[in-house]
Amino acid sequence: MAKVLTSRSENYSQWYNDLVIKADLAENSAVRGCMVIKPYGYAIWEKIQAELDRMFKETDHVNAYFPLFIPKSFFSREAQHVEGFAKECAVVTHYRLMKDEENGGLKVDPSAKLEEELVVRPTSETIIWNTYKNWIHSYRDLPILINQWANVVRWEMRTRLFLRTAEFLWQEGHTAHETSEEAVEETLKILGIYSTFAEEFLAIPVLKGLKTDSEKFAGALDTYCIEALMQDGKALQAGTSHFLGQNFAKAFDVKYASREGREEYVWATSWGVSTRLMGALVMAHSDDNGLVLPPKLAPQQVVIIPIYKTPEEYAATRERAHAIKDSLKKLGVSVKVDDRDTQKPGWKFAEYELKGVPLRLAIGPRDMQNGTIEIARRDTLTKEVIAQDQLTTVIPALLDEIQRTIYNKAFKFRAENTFNVDTWDEFLVQIEKGGFISAHWDGDAATEKMIQDETKATIRCIPLDSVAEAGLCVRTGKPSVRRVIFARSY
Amino acid sequence: MAKVLTSRSENYSQWYNDLVIKADLAENSAVRGCMVIKPYGYAIWEKIQAELDRMFKETDHVNAYFPLFIPKSFFSREAQHVEGFAKECAVVTHYRLMKDEENGGLKVDPSAKLEEELVVRPTSETIIWNTYKNWIHSYRDLPILINQWANVVRWEMRTRLFLRTAEFLWQEGHTAHETSEEAVEETLKILGIYSTFAEEFLAIPVLKGLKTDSEKFAGALDTYCIEALMQDGKALQAGTSHFLGQNFAKAFDVKYASREGREEYVWATSWGVSTRLMGALVMAHSDDNGLVLPPKLAPQQVVIIPIYKTPEEYAATRERAHAIKDSLKKLGVSVKVDDRDTQKPGWKFAEYELKGVPLRLAIGPRDMQNGTIEIARRDTLTKEVIAQDQLTTVIPALLDEIQRTIYNKAFKFRAENTFNVDTWDEFLVQIEKGGFISAHWDGDAATEKMIQDETKATIRCIPLDSVAEAGLCVRTGKPSVRRVIFARSY
Repeated sequence: MAKVLTSRSENYSQWYNDLVIKADLAENSAVRGCMVIKPYGYAIWEKIQAELDRMFKETDHVNAYFPLFIPKSFFSREAQHVEGFAKECAVVTHYRLMKDEENGGLKVDPSAKLEEELVVRPTSETIIWNTYKNWIHSYRDLPILINQWANVVRWEMRTRLFLRTAEFLWQEGHTAHETSEEAVEETLKILGIYSTFAEEFLAIPVLKGLKTDSEKFAGALDTYCIEALMQDGKALQAGTSHFLGQNFAKAFDVKYASREGREEYVWATSWGVSTRLMGALVMAHSDDNGLVLPPKLAPQQVVIIPIYKTPEEYAATRERAHAIKDSLKKLGVSVKVDDRDTQKPGWKFAEYELKGVPLRLAIGPRDMQNGTIEIARRDTLTKEVIAQDQLTTVIPALLDEIQRTIYNKAFKFRAENTFNVDTWDEFLVQIEKGGFISAHWDGDAATEKMIQDETKATIRCIPLDSVAEAGLCVRTGKPSVRRVIFARSY
Repeated sequence: MAKVLTSRSENYSQWYNDLVIKADLAENSAVRGCMVIKPYGYAIWEKIQAELDRMFKETDHVNAYFPLFIPKSFFSREAQHVEGFAKECAVVTHYRLMKDEENGGLKVDPSAKLEEELVVRPTSETIIWNTYKNWIHSYRDLPILINQWANVVRWEMRTRLFLRTAEFLWQEGHTAHETSEEAVEETLKILGIYSTFAEEFLAIPVLKGLKTDSEKFAGALDTYCIEALMQDGKALQAGTSHFLGQNFAKAFDVKYASREGREEYVWATSWGVSTRLMGALVMAHSDDNGLVLPPKLAPQQVVIIPIYKTPEEYAATRERAHAIKDSLKKLGVSVKVDDRDTQKPGWKFAEYELKGVPLRLAIGPRDMQNGTIEIARRDTLTKEVIAQDQLTTVIPALLDEIQRTIYNKAFKFRAENTFNVDTWDEFLVQIEKGGFISAHWDGDAATEKMIQDETKATIRCIPLDSVAEAGLCVRTGKPSVRRVIFARSY
């Protein structure tokens, strides 16, 4: 079979695009920057959603839904927020089309102009805090712990499937609290959920850290993030959790009567992950043959392919394949039998390799005689033959092992690609090779910008587990008290 | 406690609005016609989604996601469709805001005008069929059975929470088939799913039928629907399933190589239900005290309220309440204990009555002595005292009984409010009283319009189970072969 993907070493970026399209995850649409998420891609997103939703609900969050449109003036209410979010966005100016008598087709009805333009939400802090104003009067109304699953739009000029699209899907949490301490605790609790989810489900090790002032969310006091390292040595921000202080409460005048009877502004957090996680999942684990999916998020964990020459062999292997499927389904394993007679086994093998199905079982006439079956692992591309009556113990154990192996491989990759760098010369060399660079920084935004202008590297985060360590800024030589993480990023 | 709702007899419409807001289902937002779905309302919607999604997947449908925006020109491609859907809609004309130096705040950047305006999807046939064109080449690519959960926007001038809002949430199925027969079969299969869902989960009996040409979907050959009767005698269309023929395949040039090697246009269906179902649920069952929720869709099926005077009684009843909760949760019953000491029992009783929790349990000091507990049913407002050790058998049985009782009540109401009418005088009298009118119609769209203009009644559907019966049109006296259903509607 012909190679369907550009190899990673040849062109990593092209490999990613090829893979997303050829594995049927997503494709570009007729609308600039907007993607179509295809059924196979969407099935993975549904699994991501289901696990996160469960984790949010277990920590007392509830879902709700707020309007897609935000009045333009709302963005001017919070001074920092307007800078960050009210620029490149989709603006609704009219509410009617009419027949275009001159040119045929349709045209905008000029008489149907909105008094105030509406912005398609790029994020929902403003409309939500405008709503919370009516919901919050006393400390008895707090906390509010709401999450929303929604589509959002940011008019990105350069887009890439999943990583940066004009429209994307995400969840956005918006919580309201009595005290600063409680809001910070919530911010960190969510960061913990994101990190657990990334490591246990996506099988991607992440750094938990704090963003610098230049990188934080527009309107936040502190932005916490999880940062992952991709196979090409570039970083990817996989989720953010913001401590918003009282900024939005002040902008939308949201006060509550405290336990002591005083009027106080409410404390806020917001947090989100998006379909960008799909991009991280693809880039962290996949290889030149296609996707490598962690079993916990694979739409099908096992595929069974009957091998046959005669109609009798077809009937027999097919029947056995379905019997095995039924026995595995009872254990909660998701299984597909591909018994189409319109495609050859070799074609099917390549297809499921491309699609990253964790385990492929093949059963032929000889296996029927011997009571055996061939198992191929997608992650290691290794094969073994086992007794069919072992399947119900072997398969669940193998799925667990694959999940662990994929994580360990990514963990090892990150360890081997994280470097303590202490001189600027070394920095300049290492940044070209990629990876996380742990280096001292003087804490000055001007230095940060200078480094970015000179190397395209940004400070990904100040890791939460970083230890106090006296040192000298890698760029300026000024004193520094701890290392931060630099990288080029998506 | 003060009455919180307008009564149904006083003002049904006001009762509905009061109830939706006071039971915390939804509220109007700062954006004209767009609603905020509050956590309690959204929890019901999530249950609706979960059940429908399961039913779609059991019948081999998969989910996917298509862009929010549709290029304006796409709407002109299908001649009927443009009439129905490209008029009152939200139009994106620009992609950037800028500082308004003169007036402060923000203004639209005139240099960021889109070459072609984008319409926020009112429904997705056009963008989806434009995509299917690239996915379908041969009969091997068929059928495509895709569903999408999404938000849509139609610029309605007169809006009502859930029933008619500018933005609403829905699912839209879009399927592609080799033959007309297969597409019609799919259309009816989905109609069956909608009807089963309405009757078994919403507990609302529905008429399955065909829309007349004037009422069908713009672009469909046939529109099938389920129609429900509300307590005020008005009809509500609760779901539609369209046989689209080859209209969209022709508009977007989607052909396939058939088994016989010929090029053929693909056959299509589309179908949807929306957050409108929330409105139907409220209006079909609720009463002057608040919501009445069918147990299968209630976010909490049981609430337990401890009754106490002394701290010792508080501790004891509270502990028992939580023990009962745990034993019921093991049976899959969703239970909340409201042990707040900030509210009196009477306040809590009224609150859960308003919110429609199917069963309310109250446990006080005397119950602690006697091993008893009081159960109050929301649907009948009846109470009984039973032994606590009976709860695990009584509660699940009662929940089943409530689900049945609510359905039966709605069924009886519909039966008592469906009338065979054979004269125009009778029609004029009955239509003022409300209900479904089963009457003969001559099949002429002009007659249908005349009846609507004179009485505001529309033909809700031609029921699928209607029997051939010779008769005379109730308005014109011309011959007719079967009765159709007339009603005023939402």
